[in-house]
Amino acid sequence: MTICQLVHLNGALLPLMQAHVSPLDRGFLFAHAAYEVTAVYGGRFVDLEGHIARLQRTLAGISIPDPHSAEGWASLHRELIAHNDLVEGLVYLQVTGGAYDARDFAGPQAFVPTVFAYADARPLIGAGAREGIAAVFLEDMRWKRRDMKTTQLLSQALAYRAARGHGADTALMVEDGFVTEAASANAWIVTGEGEIITRDLSPAILSGITRAGVMKLREAGGFTITERAFTPEEAVNAAEVFTSSAGAMVAPVVTLDGRPVGEGRPGPVTRRVQRLYYEAMGADVPVAAPFVFDRD
Amino acid sequence: MTICQLVHLNGALLPLMQAHVSPLDRGFLFAHAAYEVTAVYGGRFVDLEGHIARLQRTLAGISIPDPHSAEGWASLHRELIAHNDLVEGLVYLQVTGGAYDARDFAGPQAFVPTVFAYADARPLIGAGAREGIAAVFLEDMRWKRRDMKTTQLLSQALAYRAARGHGADTALMVEDGFVTEAASANAWIVTGEGEIITRDLSPAILSGITRAGVMKLREAGGFTITERAFTPEEAVNAAEVFTSSAGAMVAPVVTLDGRPVGEGRPGPVTRRVQRLYYEAMGADVPVAAPFVFDRD
Repeated sequence: MTICQLVHLNGALLPLMQAHVSPLDRGFLFAHAAYEVTAVYGGRFVDLEGHIARLQRTLAGISIPDPHSAEGWASLHRELIAHNDLVEGLVYLQVTGGAYDARDFAGPQAFVPTVFAYADARPLIGAGAREGIAAVFLEDMRWKRRDMKTTQLLSQALAYRAARGHGADTALMVEDGFVTEAASANAWIVTGEGEIITRDLSPAILSGITRAGVMKLREAGGFTITERAFTPEEAVNAAEVFTSSAGAMVAPVVTLDGRPVGEGRPGPVTRRVQRLYYEAMGADVPVAAPFVFDRD
Repeated sequence: MTICQLVHLNGALLPLMQAHVSPLDRGFLFAHAAYEVTAVYGGRFVDLEGHIARLQRTLAGISIPDPHSAEGWASLHRELIAHNDLVEGLVYLQVTGGAYDARDFAGPQAFVPTVFAYADARPLIGAGAREGIAAVFLEDMRWKRRDMKTTQLLSQALAYRAARGHGADTALMVEDGFVTEAASANAWIVTGEGEIITRDLSPAILSGITRAGVMKLREAGGFTITERAFTPEEAVNAAEVFTSSAGAMVAPVVTLDGRPVGEGRPGPVTRRVQRLYYEAMGADVPVAAPFVFDRD
């Protein structure tokens, strides 16, 4: 992954090394910020409308006036990848409550947001998607409004570090005896009967755009998808486990707490979800995409 | 409150307007930062050792290598107030996980911290301390490690805004039927029998340095202080309620959800705690301090 040279800061495109924010910015002092990460494939965005709609919901939820229309946000995204010649990768966007001349929790009546965005060139289908990832169970330490995509992410940074300390790539977060989601992705299990289960939407989890994308494959894939909370034990005993996120898209989880999931390699249902997701990618991608995993 | 002209950034003192951080700083992207706010009275710090010790605990808890010894942190604080001629006010200090050339939750093996600090000139005994403040009950939305003083503060920024929306100054946060603490302060109640109650220390609340300072007054004040969780109902029916924090020190809460606490004005026990706290302020303050509230 390589952050592209030109970044967006408050309406201007400028070199990354010249992009600075005030240490009095509310994004820095209070984690008062919304963010989105949108995939780019073949020079086009994947589900950009969904990301923008969620950004709008988060901004409203954290009292930041939306500085742009949906079309304005889309233009910002398009301009960023055009000027950086980005064909494949991600766009990261963060909108904070802005900087003021005092540190005050409540802040002014109306915030003047700081907008920062960068493009990140990287192959979207990485080793994790091909070979699978390792996960461990960790307690979910996050605040209670996980449906809003904010930068209160220290809890998740620490979860990733703890996972790495256990030799794993990510964690399945557990709260009150049920899995909420993965460290920065939604979590899915596949039963021995081929039923796909993912947690139902609530403030306990993020309403993933990639999660919604997988849901849309229900008919094309002939999938039975049930939305309900599942336990760590169900995950351990599942035939397959996978995660969904804009960054890693559909990633097979092949070990849990060091023990193999199913046969310890990506299973057939996960492979089918991956293939259909890649094919459908934003409906912007040629169907004959180079993602053939059926050799597994 | 006025932020003083010279701020500290990574070892240098420079004008506030020249202080910038990277938008890729982990303090900005992930709220990966510890902070402290230390009071200054008569040109001397109040309980600086306590704040530095807590900073060290928080840094260890969030995997940030401590860039200074306790004496180094103290020097940084002293230098900041000396160069700004600060006699009364606060010093704010924030230590983040630093800036890197990629956004990665787990981050590098060893972080290179960003250190930012500023001095804020303000009278320490404000209108709130003199006349009392209004509070409302709100659900505590924070993450589960509130014993670490980190910048995952959006939840509290939103709590202050919600309190203001209800015409109040702060909130008493409620979780599982018990008060945790105030929006950015510890919470205390005084029963009709004069017993002082504040929640016992655990990951559910911050281990307040001012809270510890009030505890130390137990003997001098002849106070009976019990550390246990109390309910919103107990607070509503209490004779007195107050909060403690470095910024507002001891603040009487005179209304709860719009109804008067006791007689709706600062009560005698709270006044006594205030007077003793001000007198004892860091043991650096002349005992004959100009804080006479006994006319109440």
